Amino acid sequence: MDTPAATDSLTAALEELRHRFGERLLTSDAAREHHGSGESHLPPQWPDAVIMATSTEDIADILRAAHTHGVPVIPFGAGSSLEGQIHAPRGGISIDMSGMDQIIAVNPEDMDCRVACGVTRQALNEHLRDTGLFFPVDLGAHATLGGMAATRASGTTTVRYGSMRDLVLGLTVVMPDGQIIKTGGRARKSSAGYDLTRLMVGSEGTLGIITELTLRLFGIPEAAQSAMCSFASIGKATETVVAALQCGLCLNRIELADTVQMRAINAYSGSDLPEHPTLWIELTGSETAVAHDMAILRDLAEGALRFEAAQTAEAASKLWRIRHDALYAARALRPGIKGISTDVCVPVSQLPACISGIMDVIATTSIIAPLVGHVGDGNFHLVLLYDPADADEVREARHINSSLIEMALAMGGTCTGEHGVGLGKKAYLDAEHGPALDVMRRIKRALDPGGIMNPGKIFDL
Amino acid sequence: MDTPAATDSLTAALEELRHRFGERLLTSDAAREHHGSGESHLPPQWPDAVIMATSTEDIADILRAAHTHGVPVIPFGAGSSLEGQIHAPRGGISIDMSGMDQIIAVNPEDMDCRVACGVTRQALNEHLRDTGLFFPVDLGAHATLGGMAATRASGTTTVRYGSMRDLVLGLTVVMPDGQIIKTGGRARKSSAGYDLTRLMVGSEGTLGIITELTLRLFGIPEAAQSAMCSFASIGKATETVVAALQCGLCLNRIELADTVQMRAINAYSGSDLPEHPTLWIELTGSETAVAHDMAILRDLAEGALRFEAAQTAEAASKLWRIRHDALYAARALRPGIKGISTDVCVPVSQLPACISGIMDVIATTSIIAPLVGHVGDGNFHLVLLYDPADADEVREARHINSSLIEMALAMGGTCTGEHGVGLGKKAYLDAEHGPALDVMRRIKRALDPGGIMNPGKIFDL
Repeated sequence: MDTPAATDSLTAALEELRHRFGERLLTSDAAREHHGSGESHLPPQWPDAVIMATSTEDIADILRAAHTHGVPVIPFGAGSSLEGQIHAPRGGISIDMSGMDQIIAVNPEDMDCRVACGVTRQALNEHLRDTGLFFPVDLGAHATLGGMAATRASGTTTVRYGSMRDLVLGLTVVMPDGQIIKTGGRARKSSAGYDLTRLMVGSEGTLGIITELTLRLFGIPEAAQSAMCSFASIGKATETVVAALQCGLCLNRIELADTVQMRAINAYSGSDLPEHPTLWIELTGSETAVAHDMAILRDLAEGALRFEAAQTAEAASKLWRIRHDALYAARALRPGIKGISTDVCVPVSQLPACISGIMDVIATTSIIAPLVGHVGDGNFHLVLLYDPADADEVREARHINSSLIEMALAMGGTCTGEHGVGLGKKAYLDAEHGPALDVMRRIKRALDPGGIMNPGKIFDL
Repeated sequence: MDTPAATDSLTAALEELRHRFGERLLTSDAAREHHGSGESHLPPQWPDAVIMATSTEDIADILRAAHTHGVPVIPFGAGSSLEGQIHAPRGGISIDMSGMDQIIAVNPEDMDCRVACGVTRQALNEHLRDTGLFFPVDLGAHATLGGMAATRASGTTTVRYGSMRDLVLGLTVVMPDGQIIKTGGRARKSSAGYDLTRLMVGSEGTLGIITELTLRLFGIPEAAQSAMCSFASIGKATETVVAALQCGLCLNRIELADTVQMRAINAYSGSDLPEHPTLWIELTGSETAVAHDMAILRDLAEGALRFEAAQTAEAASKLWRIRHDALYAARALRPGIKGISTDVCVPVSQLPACISGIMDVIATTSIIAPLVGHVGDGNFHLVLLYDPADADEVREARHINSSLIEMALAMGGTCTGEHGVGLGKKAYLDAEHGPALDVMRRIKRALDPGGIMNPGKIFDL
């Protein structure tokens, strides 16, 4: 562990902050390690200190001190980000906001709520249980809503409800100099000036720290029906997806796994599911609409090798558990190997070409790489199971990752559909954005002239 | 007409541009008047010259010259903006993009398209006619898609499909120094850096000029059913709206008119519709879903004085024509008076209080002010019918407008739901955004340091 040397500025900032935060300022190795590792595949980079913040004012005070002394700050929610967003490549202060877990207001009539940034989506939905409402962004991770906004997260239900980009109505943000601003509001739409809400969503803590969020909520649909179907090829599966999207079926989730992933699932759970490209589909809405659309879906999937509609809620839940366990099943193909997850997103029509293109590349390597994807959005993940201690495998995994991104960009896609850039995807942004990346840099310099906000993330200056 | 004096810089820029654009550079009074008036209630402010642009490269060349010489540029689409967005308070060059009307690509499988900025939504939907797809943003005006993006426009179907904010996947933008950038892409979602697409959407030409757009398209629903229902009060009407939203009915449009507006409609068209608060509702989806949801809607509207479901397509179209003619009916209450349209948007639950609050204010004046609204979004328009030559009426109309905005902001709403800021709403942004307005200014200064892009709009520097 290479810790940046403590500088005078850092010492001065920490002294000032220790007066303010007392025991909530931590410098133990345990705290620094926890806050500098996270879920990513990248080597840990510890912050110099951690502050357990409990309010927007706490964060404003920290940022004022950091601004004065020129010390980096790194926002930390649940530590579930995958691309090193919480790493501290230049040291500094990690601000842990997991204690900011107040659900401030729920407005059932307006179907919105206001939460502090450390509330997890699970905690919010638990809280909403008796209202008939829910917050729909559904990712695999146990993440905070502030972190989800900061990385512009999405997940399995984005095909229906959109991503964090679409569902945040307003924010409270602490700017790099400690000024507290409010963006957006509770109106469903507004044309009143620049969309600072969406500038902050996805900015990964590099422009300011999100401390509160106003979120859209939705009524829990009356009915849900699920099906799982296997196809002879990825192309046949995506044809069905395209048709279902064009027909406007009441899709809630439409997920894909490839043959390698299906083999992994069978091996992991002892099942004998067909080892072919497979779709999981959930329809939600009124009983009538769901039944009607399921019949249409069955017609649209006429080319399927097998179409299994869950007849009971238990059967549906079992079917989705298989999908949920896909990552564990993938990792079980090489016990002890964590793997890294690719994250490209392309136009849906390009999925078969993109997937078959990368499979050709994978075939030239020794890497096992099962695939799952949010196929309704054109976003898929390959889990590249390589041994970080084996130089050949590292080289091969990097080659697969960069080849995939190159293909996705050539198809009009993006290097990251939902995981964000952090440290891990920085190398690809120039190819993706071209001169627009300079516009991003100019915004960064204008709002964070001291460069203290999560430095080193998204792009270098 | 007060024209800013031509300066040396302007002369130099125009000379340079005349070489490049020849007869496409216009300085006639007719051209300047047309490009400095538009649909707004504000007194005209002419540009010094107009250039009829036909390509992104044209615009890059104009901006390079304008940048070099420090000359203002004002983007012009169809001239349908309502708040003076196309006015030239500091003179300069109006760039007319109505000739940039190429539909560049339609991708039915991916349900997206790429258009030049001068394409109108009507022209796009005409072009899409045989594909089974459509672009859903539906406003009253005959507007260009570039202009709609620049003002973050919405309209009657926003309750279902969202606004321009939600439906633009990517843009080509010419930056103030003439650099051409591409934002976003064709992927349905991305977490790759700052959301420049949504920063440009709604920036009203103050940060750059949008020249091409990638837009989401949708399948034309199989079925549509419409109803019109009258209520004893605005509160009873909005209760029905809230319930319909919470139930997730397949609402496509849900529009409101108040008693004054209904009287205007009867007087205008000789109808005898109930002179009570009225909702127009359109449900779209599969035949089954629409029929099912219409039955639920009828139950939810049990408090209605009258519930009239259109039994035929003709009846539905007649019903919507009444809604469409509402503005003409409103203006006919005071022939010769154009009126101005307010545009606040509040949380739906606050609509009854907001509307009754402003009605109390209106009652203290001599102004007639019929109301129509996109009630599913909480956005409504009062047409303030005042005589601009009558100082008392001008004072009263201003008082109503500012009282309304004050109320809307106190309720967590916005001064403009869909018309934008332009010149007309600038005075209210400080109250709406507070210190966030300074963040907008810092972004403006960073991206347009010379201040040439549509100067004087949204805010002053």
